[in-house]
Amino acid sequence: MTLPFLWHGGAIAAARARFGDPGPQGWLDLSTGIAPIAYPYSRLPVQAWTRLPDSDLAEAFIGAVRAAHHLPAVAAVLPIAGEQAILGLLPLCNAPSGAVCVPKPGYRGHAEAWAAAGRLVHERADPLETAGEGGVIVVINPNNPSGRRWSAESLLVAASAQAAAGGWLIVDEAFGEVTPDLSVLAYSGRPGLLVLRSFGKFFGLPGLRLGWLAGPPEVVGPLALRLGPWAVSGPALALGARAEADELWRAGQRRRLARLAVKLDGVLSRAGLVGLGGTDLFRLVEVPAGTRALDWFEGLAAQGILVRPFADAERALRFGLPGTQAARDRLAAGLARAAVK
Amino acid sequence: MTLPFLWHGGAIAAARARFGDPGPQGWLDLSTGIAPIAYPYSRLPVQAWTRLPDSDLAEAFIGAVRAAHHLPAVAAVLPIAGEQAILGLLPLCNAPSGAVCVPKPGYRGHAEAWAAAGRLVHERADPLETAGEGGVIVVINPNNPSGRRWSAESLLVAASAQAAAGGWLIVDEAFGEVTPDLSVLAYSGRPGLLVLRSFGKFFGLPGLRLGWLAGPPEVVGPLALRLGPWAVSGPALALGARAEADELWRAGQRRRLARLAVKLDGVLSRAGLVGLGGTDLFRLVEVPAGTRALDWFEGLAAQGILVRPFADAERALRFGLPGTQAARDRLAAGLARAAVK
Repeated sequence: MTLPFLWHGGAIAAARARFGDPGPQGWLDLSTGIAPIAYPYSRLPVQAWTRLPDSDLAEAFIGAVRAAHHLPAVAAVLPIAGEQAILGLLPLCNAPSGAVCVPKPGYRGHAEAWAAAGRLVHERADPLETAGEGGVIVVINPNNPSGRRWSAESLLVAASAQAAAGGWLIVDEAFGEVTPDLSVLAYSGRPGLLVLRSFGKFFGLPGLRLGWLAGPPEVVGPLALRLGPWAVSGPALALGARAEADELWRAGQRRRLARLAVKLDGVLSRAGLVGLGGTDLFRLVEVPAGTRALDWFEGLAAQGILVRPFADAERALRFGLPGTQAARDRLAAGLARAAVK
Repeated sequence: MTLPFLWHGGAIAAARARFGDPGPQGWLDLSTGIAPIAYPYSRLPVQAWTRLPDSDLAEAFIGAVRAAHHLPAVAAVLPIAGEQAILGLLPLCNAPSGAVCVPKPGYRGHAEAWAAAGRLVHERADPLETAGEGGVIVVINPNNPSGRRWSAESLLVAASAQAAAGGWLIVDEAFGEVTPDLSVLAYSGRPGLLVLRSFGKFFGLPGLRLGWLAGPPEVVGPLALRLGPWAVSGPALALGARAEADELWRAGQRRRLARLAVKLDGVLSRAGLVGLGGTDLFRLVEVPAGTRALDWFEGLAAQGILVRPFADAERALRFGLPGTQAARDRLAAGLARAAVK
């Protein structure tokens, strides 16, 4: 077992190196939480490519985000080239001192970024337990991979308690587009509350590298300076502005993803895998007692189906959404074969 | 005079806010050193958009760069989302202690990044004068905006002296594609020598945000870890791999840019502007005695022509290349009008 599969999804090149080429049908990549249906990306303006991404491109994207997500005027918005691009900077720009509390299970990038900056990092199932102690608290809502949810109310209470203690609450809403009721975006701009959003997962365009951060200007401003003037590509900003403003497509995508997720549930439960949680962009399941997730992972990978195992959860597997009936049929057949193996 | 024009080129939105809309012909942007002819960017593979930029995309780009620029096997190559994306990280990854010496005149991003990391920054016309004293030396070769050149030999001697003292020599070859004889890329991988390259300027695609760093693995490795797995977009990597491997186009582009630069020289000298230096991607000129560069800048901007003035050089203006005869005619007419103003 090589490291990349346990560290993040989408590592098809590593899968090919480890398991060989699955033949003409290619890999079925269910190892990420990325929508299998992409926002139409053709017909971008020429200048998105041939000019430096000027401030008007960024402003158009920010304006679309503000309108789509009902951001209050007091919140500042910073476009970023994907979440990874900002995580390493957060500890460097006037971050509160004190302990850093991150969710476990949870996307590892948070803990790694704070640890790389020399900060003491605690992992908790519910990081909100330390709200009011200051320092930095990170919540992923809904959680990846567990799907655990925190109500907007509980997050706002925690943010206030953190702010009163001079601390931050960072809410990573990377999968938040499919759970609008949980979002605290409408309250962003409050002291101590930072909200992170991913673009590529919901819109099915992770190759673009696009996301954004919303928070109080006194936090966002120094981060923007640090990122410099051209941190996000022209194609990403131009397409992002168009997609965020496309309410009809977004509503349709939410319905499509919900339908695909329910159909995935059927495939998984018929294979004897028990749902542990998830979002409409991925599902987390438990493999049957007496079997190991890594064996299922390898059995599927041998058939060209890549899913997501975890280093510290022996019986958990995460599945992204198959986008078609053919993909579901292939997964069902793959699971049947992996199970008897 | 607002700040953006003195800080960097390409600030058309700021120019529009300051000088108004130039009408149907639009802005003629000569404020950057970006080629006015772009590498063909259509027909990118779907997966460049719809998948996370996997390691095979990065490897293909790195392979193309290695072959195109004759990099030795000992050198490590790191794709970056434009130069700005790496400057802020350089001070954070095992950089040598001691003074930091940057060129003046010279692109300000270097000094800003080191100063932001709390380092003492010295500015010199020839930063190589401190070679052998350790710490960090930054050279831009050819220099932007002066066009000053350092021979590859002098840089390699300086790099060895720096390495012997535990220091770094960073050679920023952002405009190096038009001056291949000056490049030290073929020697990258040596201890203490880091070489930075921009993609967008020569290939006319700055919207993509692409560049790369070549250096010894012990320096590049930690930077790569710090950037994380998806620092560069899929479209940038896919197009970059294709373009870097396209020797014929690159050679043709070099000839095209050289011709355009000579034609620009004619326009500038007929307007009484005296050449101070430059590269085949931009020219630096001196305005006539008794006149101020900012007045020329404003006179041109009032006609919708944006060029690049400098905060600390009262009589210097930088001009990017007009790409067509119509653009040159417009510039010539604009200069004539700005001069009598």
